[in-house]
Amino acid sequence: MPQPLRLGIAGLGTVGTGVLKIVRRHESTLTQRAGRPVSVSAVSARSRDKDRGVPLEAFAWEDDAVALAKRDDVDVFVELIGGDTGPALEATEAALALGKDVVTANKAMLAVHGQRLAELADANGATIRFEAAVAGGIPIIKALTESLAGNEFTRVMGVMNGTCNYILTRMENAGLPYDDVFAEADALGYLEADPTLDVGGIDAGHKLALLSAIAFGTQVDFDGIDIEGIENVTIEDIEQAADMGFRVKLLGVTQMTGRGLEQRMSPCLVPANSPLGQLENAMNMVVVEGDSSGQIVLRGAGAGEGPTASAVMGDVMDLARGIRTPTFGQPAASLRKATAARASAPAPFYLRMQLEDKPGALAKVAATLADAGVSIDRMRQYQHEKPSAPVLIVTHRTTRAAIDDAIAAMGATGVMASAPVALRIETL
Amino acid sequence: MPQPLRLGIAGLGTVGTGVLKIVRRHESTLTQRAGRPVSVSAVSARSRDKDRGVPLEAFAWEDDAVALAKRDDVDVFVELIGGDTGPALEATEAALALGKDVVTANKAMLAVHGQRLAELADANGATIRFEAAVAGGIPIIKALTESLAGNEFTRVMGVMNGTCNYILTRMENAGLPYDDVFAEADALGYLEADPTLDVGGIDAGHKLALLSAIAFGTQVDFDGIDIEGIENVTIEDIEQAADMGFRVKLLGVTQMTGRGLEQRMSPCLVPANSPLGQLENAMNMVVVEGDSSGQIVLRGAGAGEGPTASAVMGDVMDLARGIRTPTFGQPAASLRKATAARASAPAPFYLRMQLEDKPGALAKVAATLADAGVSIDRMRQYQHEKPSAPVLIVTHRTTRAAIDDAIAAMGATGVMASAPVALRIETL
Repeated sequence: MPQPLRLGIAGLGTVGTGVLKIVRRHESTLTQRAGRPVSVSAVSARSRDKDRGVPLEAFAWEDDAVALAKRDDVDVFVELIGGDTGPALEATEAALALGKDVVTANKAMLAVHGQRLAELADANGATIRFEAAVAGGIPIIKALTESLAGNEFTRVMGVMNGTCNYILTRMENAGLPYDDVFAEADALGYLEADPTLDVGGIDAGHKLALLSAIAFGTQVDFDGIDIEGIENVTIEDIEQAADMGFRVKLLGVTQMTGRGLEQRMSPCLVPANSPLGQLENAMNMVVVEGDSSGQIVLRGAGAGEGPTASAVMGDVMDLARGIRTPTFGQPAASLRKATAARASAPAPFYLRMQLEDKPGALAKVAATLADAGVSIDRMRQYQHEKPSAPVLIVTHRTTRAAIDDAIAAMGATGVMASAPVALRIETL
Repeated sequence: MPQPLRLGIAGLGTVGTGVLKIVRRHESTLTQRAGRPVSVSAVSARSRDKDRGVPLEAFAWEDDAVALAKRDDVDVFVELIGGDTGPALEATEAALALGKDVVTANKAMLAVHGQRLAELADANGATIRFEAAVAGGIPIIKALTESLAGNEFTRVMGVMNGTCNYILTRMENAGLPYDDVFAEADALGYLEADPTLDVGGIDAGHKLALLSAIAFGTQVDFDGIDIEGIENVTIEDIEQAADMGFRVKLLGVTQMTGRGLEQRMSPCLVPANSPLGQLENAMNMVVVEGDSSGQIVLRGAGAGEGPTASAVMGDVMDLARGIRTPTFGQPAASLRKATAARASAPAPFYLRMQLEDKPGALAKVAATLADAGVSIDRMRQYQHEKPSAPVLIVTHRTTRAAIDDAIAAMGATGVMASAPVALRIETL
C-alpha cells in the first residue's frame, strides 16, 4: 500500500469539520481515486471541547497552529483559521518554509500576502492551493489555472458574495428596501461580524484579486481594485432596472485593457435574461471569457460546509495524486506587477437622479451630460408626488471618468435634489 | 531550458487546425504556464495540400497516423481523426503500447473501446485525456475527475448536443415544426453526415457514457444507455410544455440507483426557469450533483474550433506540467462492471395523446392509467377541429415501466387516434 497523504487541519469551524467528515465518510473512494489513502494526523482549533459532531480522538491535538504545521507527521497543512494575519499567516509561512504544501480557504490572507507567500512557496518547492477561497464549491481556480491554460483571457466576471446576491434578489422579489433586507439577513446570520466585508464588497474583492493574478499573470493587487458596495442600491434602482430588462448584481470584473489591469467590484446592471442576471439568492457564478474557449459559465453554492469542504478536498486530492502547479499558475517570479487602469473600459451607464421641480431642470441635466461628452440612449421622467422629480437615464457607451465629470458638473446646476447614482451596465 | 513537450497531431480538421493556431499564437504564455515549451513535431491528415490557414512546413508530415504515433520525436499523440475504429483506434493503440499519453476528442471511440484502451494505458504507464470529447470547451472531465474528487455523485445531467438544442429552441422561438427546423439545420451545415448521430441522441449518449464511468467508477457502458432522439418531439409538445412552465431538452442523465446504474438520453421536460431550461441555441450545459458540493452547473460552447481546441490544449498543458490521472480517474482494473438499471428512477411524466371523439374516451384513458398505478396530476383537453381530440396529462411521480404498461393498455381501448408520446419531467 502506498504511503498516505497526511493532513494537519488548523481551524475546525464548519469547513474544517466538513473536511473531517468527508475524509471519514469516503475513505475507500478517496483511496481508489488518489491511489493512496488520505489521512488526518493532527488538528488544532480555538476550543478543544466544543461538540462538532465529529470524533477527534483519533487525531493528535495542537493548541498552536504553527506547531501543527511543523509536525513531522503532517505532509500538507490545511489552513481554515481565516484572517489575513495572526495564526493563519504564521502557520502558513511555517509550513511553506519547511517545503510543505498548503491548502487554504483564506481569501483575505492571499489577497494581501499572496505574492510574498507564492514566492516563499516557490523558494521551498511547495505550492499553495486555494480552490475553497473563491466561490465556494465552484471549481473556478482549477478551471482558470489548468483547464483553460491554452487561452488568453479577455475578461473574468463573477458574483462571488452570496450574502449580497441574497440581499439584492430578496429586495427585488419582495419589493423591500435595502435596510429591511439587510436586517433580515443579519437576523438569519448571513452577515460577517463586520458586515462591510460583505455588503461593502471587500470579501468579493479579495476573491477577484486572486482570479486576476491567475488570469493575467500579474501579482495580486487587491489595492488596485475599485470597490463599491451595495449599500446605496435602492429598491427603485432594482425596479427601474427590471423594467428596462436588467437586474442589479454586485459584480466583480477583471480585464486587461490597453492602459493596464482594470479590476472593479461594484453594483452593475446585467441583462435579466443572461446567466448572471438569472442568478438568484445566495448562489455564486463566475464567467470566464477566453480567446479560444469563448464564454464559460460556472455556477454553484459560494459558501457553506459541504461546498467549501468539497473545494478543500479537491485540492487535497490533487496533492495526493501528485498534481501540483505553482500557486498562481506560473512561477511567482514571473508574475508581472499590475498597472491599475481604473475604470477605463467604456460601458453604458444607468443614472438615477432627483431633480427639483423647476422649469428647464431636465434641459440643464441633458446639457451637462452633453458637455461631458456623454450621449443619452434613453431617458425617463416618472410620475411623482414629491417636490422633486425622479429621472432615469441610460447612456450610450462612455467612460466612468466622463460620468464622474458630468455628475460633478450637475452639482453646480442648482436643479439636483440629491446626488445622482451611477451604475455601470455590464454587457455580456 | 527544460525539454519541450512534443506533440504529434493526427487529423487537421477545424479542431486540429485550432490547436496548431493556439500553440503558435500563445507560445510564450504556454511556456510560462507549463514551465516548458509545447511544440508540434509532426502532423498527419487525409490531404496534405488543403489550405488550412496555418503553415505546416515546420512540422514533419506522416500519411499514416500509426506512423505518426510511433515517431521518436512525438511524446504525446493528439488524436483528432474521429470514428470509433480505423486509423483513430489503431494509432491510439500504437501510442499507448509505447507508453505515450494520448489526448483525444473522440467520444465514439472511448464510448465503445474505453475500458480496453484505459487498461492498455495503465499497463504501459500512459493515460488518455479526453476533455474535448465531452461538451466542447466546458471543463467537465477535469471538474468531475479532479475538482470534485471529494464527492460521491448523486446525479450528473447534461445537454451535450448543440445541434439538438439548437433545433429545440429554434422550434420554440420561431413556432416551427421539427421537419422545417431540421431542414434549416441541415442547410446550415449543423448536422453530421449521418444526422441520426445528432438527432437520434447517439453522439450525446457517447458523452454520457464517459461521464458515468468517471462519476460512478464503473466501466464505460454505452450499450446500457436508454437512448431516445428528438425526432418525435412536436411543436405542440414544446408549446404545451412552455404553457406549463417547462422547456423540452435532449437531456442525458446518469445516476446510481438501488438497482444499478441508470443512464438515459431522451427528450425531457425541465423547469423553464432552471439553468437547463434557460439554455438556448447550440450551447451545452452539464449539471453535477455531489454529496458535498451540491449542484454545480457548467455552461459553454459544446463545439467549434476554438472551444474544442481550448479543451485539447487544457489536456496538453496538464501533460506538459506533469499532471496525470488514470483515464477515468482511477485505475481501469478498479472500475466495476455496471449493472444497467433501465429507467427505474421515478419521475413525473408528460403524456400527449390524440383521442377519438367518442363519448367516454377520456374516461377510458383515465381508467387505463389508474389500472397501471399511474396517478394524474393535471389533465387538459384542448379545443380542436379534427375528428380527434388532443389531450395532455402530467402524472405524479411514477416509473417508466408503469407509463409503458399504461400506453400498451391504451392501445386496446379503441379510443386512441395515434400512439401517445411520453416525456419524462426531470426535477432539478
